[in-house]
Amino acid sequence: MMKIAIAQLNPTIGDIFGNSNLILEAAKISAVEDANLLLTPELSLIGYPPRDLLLDPSFIAAAGAQLQQLAQDLPPELAVIVGTVVPNADAVKLGGQSLFNSAVLLQNGAVKQVFHKRLLPTYDVFDEDRYFEPGKNSNYFTIGDRKIGVTICEDLWNNEEFWGKRSYAGDPIADLAKFGVDLVVNLSASPYSVGKREVRSAMLQHSAIRFGIPIVYANQVGGNDDIIFDGSSFALNRQGDLIQVLASFETDFAVLEYDANKQDLIGSGKGQDARSTQDAGFTTNLSFHPPLGDAEIWAALVFGVRDYVRKCGFSKAVLGLSGGIDSALVAAIASCAIGPENVLGVLMPSPYSSDHSVNDALELARNLGIAIELLPIGDLMKTYDRTLADLFLNTTFGIAEENIQSRIRGNLLMAISNKFGHLLLSTGNKSEMSVGYCTLYGDMNGGLAVISDVPKTRAYSLCRWLNSDSGMGKEMIPVNIISKAPSAELKPGQIDQDSLPAYDVLDDILQRLIEHHESVQEIVAAGHDAAVVKLVVKLVTQSEFKRRQAAPGLKISDRAFGTGWRMPIAKASSY
Amino acid sequence: MMKIAIAQLNPTIGDIFGNSNLILEAAKISAVEDANLLLTPELSLIGYPPRDLLLDPSFIAAAGAQLQQLAQDLPPELAVIVGTVVPNADAVKLGGQSLFNSAVLLQNGAVKQVFHKRLLPTYDVFDEDRYFEPGKNSNYFTIGDRKIGVTICEDLWNNEEFWGKRSYAGDPIADLAKFGVDLVVNLSASPYSVGKREVRSAMLQHSAIRFGIPIVYANQVGGNDDIIFDGSSFALNRQGDLIQVLASFETDFAVLEYDANKQDLIGSGKGQDARSTQDAGFTTNLSFHPPLGDAEIWAALVFGVRDYVRKCGFSKAVLGLSGGIDSALVAAIASCAIGPENVLGVLMPSPYSSDHSVNDALELARNLGIAIELLPIGDLMKTYDRTLADLFLNTTFGIAEENIQSRIRGNLLMAISNKFGHLLLSTGNKSEMSVGYCTLYGDMNGGLAVISDVPKTRAYSLCRWLNSDSGMGKEMIPVNIISKAPSAELKPGQIDQDSLPAYDVLDDILQRLIEHHESVQEIVAAGHDAAVVKLVVKLVTQSEFKRRQAAPGLKISDRAFGTGWRMPIAKASSY
Repeated sequence: MMKIAIAQLNPTIGDIFGNSNLILEAAKISAVEDANLLLTPELSLIGYPPRDLLLDPSFIAAAGAQLQQLAQDLPPELAVIVGTVVPNADAVKLGGQSLFNSAVLLQNGAVKQVFHKRLLPTYDVFDEDRYFEPGKNSNYFTIGDRKIGVTICEDLWNNEEFWGKRSYAGDPIADLAKFGVDLVVNLSASPYSVGKREVRSAMLQHSAIRFGIPIVYANQVGGNDDIIFDGSSFALNRQGDLIQVLASFETDFAVLEYDANKQDLIGSGKGQDARSTQDAGFTTNLSFHPPLGDAEIWAALVFGVRDYVRKCGFSKAVLGLSGGIDSALVAAIASCAIGPENVLGVLMPSPYSSDHSVNDALELARNLGIAIELLPIGDLMKTYDRTLADLFLNTTFGIAEENIQSRIRGNLLMAISNKFGHLLLSTGNKSEMSVGYCTLYGDMNGGLAVISDVPKTRAYSLCRWLNSDSGMGKEMIPVNIISKAPSAELKPGQIDQDSLPAYDVLDDILQRLIEHHESVQEIVAAGHDAAVVKLVVKLVTQSEFKRRQAAPGLKISDRAFGTGWRMPIAKASSY
Repeated sequence: MMKIAIAQLNPTIGDIFGNSNLILEAAKISAVEDANLLLTPELSLIGYPPRDLLLDPSFIAAAGAQLQQLAQDLPPELAVIVGTVVPNADAVKLGGQSLFNSAVLLQNGAVKQVFHKRLLPTYDVFDEDRYFEPGKNSNYFTIGDRKIGVTICEDLWNNEEFWGKRSYAGDPIADLAKFGVDLVVNLSASPYSVGKREVRSAMLQHSAIRFGIPIVYANQVGGNDDIIFDGSSFALNRQGDLIQVLASFETDFAVLEYDANKQDLIGSGKGQDARSTQDAGFTTNLSFHPPLGDAEIWAALVFGVRDYVRKCGFSKAVLGLSGGIDSALVAAIASCAIGPENVLGVLMPSPYSSDHSVNDALELARNLGIAIELLPIGDLMKTYDRTLADLFLNTTFGIAEENIQSRIRGNLLMAISNKFGHLLLSTGNKSEMSVGYCTLYGDMNGGLAVISDVPKTRAYSLCRWLNSDSGMGKEMIPVNIISKAPSAELKPGQIDQDSLPAYDVLDDILQRLIEHHESVQEIVAAGHDAAVVKLVVKLVTQSEFKRRQAAPGLKISDRAFGTGWRMPIAKASSY
């Protein structure tokens, strides 16, 4: 009987010493549990994605030194697989990148074997070809008479039977199968997106069955800038059954057993999954129940906020409460993430604000239990008008004046952030960010854009879910906030649909355009009005300059604005 | 005798039709000049870098259709090499990226041959592995009995004898030499940085001599967001002599002759280089005279502003004039780039502004001939103070209050930008951006950060150069602006050196840290105070959240903040 422990860790990028301690703690527990092998996530020693920290030779040297130290500190008998970077000694002579993305097997105080990642993702948020040379060899080692194949994240994502296409020339698990491995382990840092857990398990289930090899999948958990790693590690036996599922959106630990007689993995029930995944709003019972998409997205956003706030060294957050649905949703997420006592909502009504806006925001704050400040901006608007009166003489009220209001609010919020050390959360949704229905240096201000990958229609559905029995079971978001017509309230009587198509129409067009890469012709063929589609495409194209200066936004879709969205600004607006 | 034309074009990214016309116009001139072959830059049909436009199938289809149309429109006998993307038909079956970065030989109304780029840069601002599959074959074609090798940009950057190291396994020019080509042409989109022209010519001179092959190098010119392409195309004979040099920072055209008897390239003198490069502040005479670095940087920044303003559809610019050196320099660059009549300087003095600040700014505006507006911000400061009085009760004046001033100015400038359609230029330098000595949503506001890759010490030297006989030969930047102690003037008596090391010290530390990747230990060993170095490293690390939301900044160094700088925000602050 061989025992394999999975440490679903939450490393902090660059915190080599702290991450080393996380691994060491997990190793001590593993030793107590009589595990033979401890598996940690991809780049567990340095955090993923380390990005351009990898260009700093002193960082690489520090990681190398800490790895040696860790090897000596670990329980000697336990085999531990640590993810880190390893220099490519041949780079100068043979060409190629100067680092490998590696899994290092530590045992008895030393580095026993080193395995290099073979398939390097270079798409969406991934830039691995920028830093890493692909490994050329099949990676495996032995414990007793068991041969264990080692793969790193993308190495298992080239199952051309599952995808219907090949993404890379090689397929590491197919190669390992030829070597007759008994088991494949995978160190991952696989970002969350809606439904991603089910994709991972279905894909690896297909591979386990196809090759008749059990698979242990150890994913990183953590919020790292715009990317949320959900964890959701799991194990499959050679029939492709899920025999262990770890928590989503929190650290977790589990021990599995490999039964030498059955030549297969069996679950030990030692994981914390049942408890912890219920905390995150899920039941697992050895399968991922994607409840409503809303519950999953809610859990992701709450975790993304909580971890970003912590890793950036904040404890409190501030946001503007307009009485609208976006700020209400963000306030609710923040309250759940860091506690309502750490959230400050600021109401900044203007003469154009309707009475219900202030009342709705006050009711929201009461429901959530967060503190509020009321800072009317009428005087500031008048003072800006006076300051600009000569220059703006004989011009008419327009975008400039609307934006001044938004920027006054942005300034007040940043003043509070600077004065009291609160992280400012911005509240724009993906629909607005797409078409530029937002003010740069105004409502876009913030250290984190909590829902900038959440379409407006999803914002509504999240709020409804939150109020439902599946959510909090009581009215957290005042019903009036959900039912009233959305408005920026930057001029009298304004509603969003003066400028934009209805949100269900807009969101469908945007999803086709952005996530599905459909052309104007294809979107029109799907039933949308051609003029509306062209308007939306034009607005998306023209808004690039705003998005370039946006705060990092939590990614929940397969194509979010942020590090995975790389568009030129100065370009032809249509073709 | 074979004649080869070089069209140093300035394509607009995504403007397939417009770019096609640029190629067509150059082809018509080439035909008049009796050229046999026309060479255009890398991706000349779609512009470089197209970035995620390449993920849009309808864009790829449109480029393919336009290429066919162009083939039919071109003078039939002329061979034209166009840069564009070509689908990788094998990707689904064999794996790999779905596109090639290609050079397409058009002649007699059709595509005659297609050549794929073999070495794909994936570092700094380059992301080519994200989109492209590397070509596997040596690329050449024949005109008469002459064999012409085709390379694309990076293909010629792996001369391991020149660099002392190999960056890629293969070396396309070495392979072409084995095939006995008579000439190598190169389609490039090589970004500008200080001294880059000399590096290119020295490297290719080494290759020409090493392999005994003349080289024609056609580089793109243009300002594309943060990246400036300088053009500076050139040709070398087989002895490595520069026989033709095209203009820097403007479009250009030249015709070269290949002498069949000499089996070498000879210059025809038909280029426009002599005239045009003098306009840009250079004399060429078949070599790059790097005058002072200042003249070269000045020309780059002027061109970068001019082209960004044009490609984004603006004609006028606005900026804040503080009376300090940074805004003075940016005002001078903008005046040169788009004409002083299109530049508006806004003076926004506060009660903390010294008298000389306003006077210095007024004198600057007179020297440059730009319009000014005076918008004192004292009333707005008081109104913010009043609005925040209750909330800020019993707190002391600090960063929050300083930033309010900067943000008031940022708001006023954006109001003017929004009202009149001026592009707002931000004026922060690289030293400030490095250590975060700047206000997010305040002085960082703008559509383009003109000098955000220019260290403060270089800003001084540029201003001195501008006033000198080598520059404008008269006092453009008032001497008092250059000689007074730099100050943000956000509180009484404040100077920059209250918070920062002297700029010559700071800039040296920053250059070592950022451009040379030196460790703290190495920088201290170079003679800097350990406490100062540690402070600077800490400030640089902590300011990442500001830079993430900065405007695109013109890149003039080998490591600029912007698309080539990819740092995590949430990370350990030291290691």
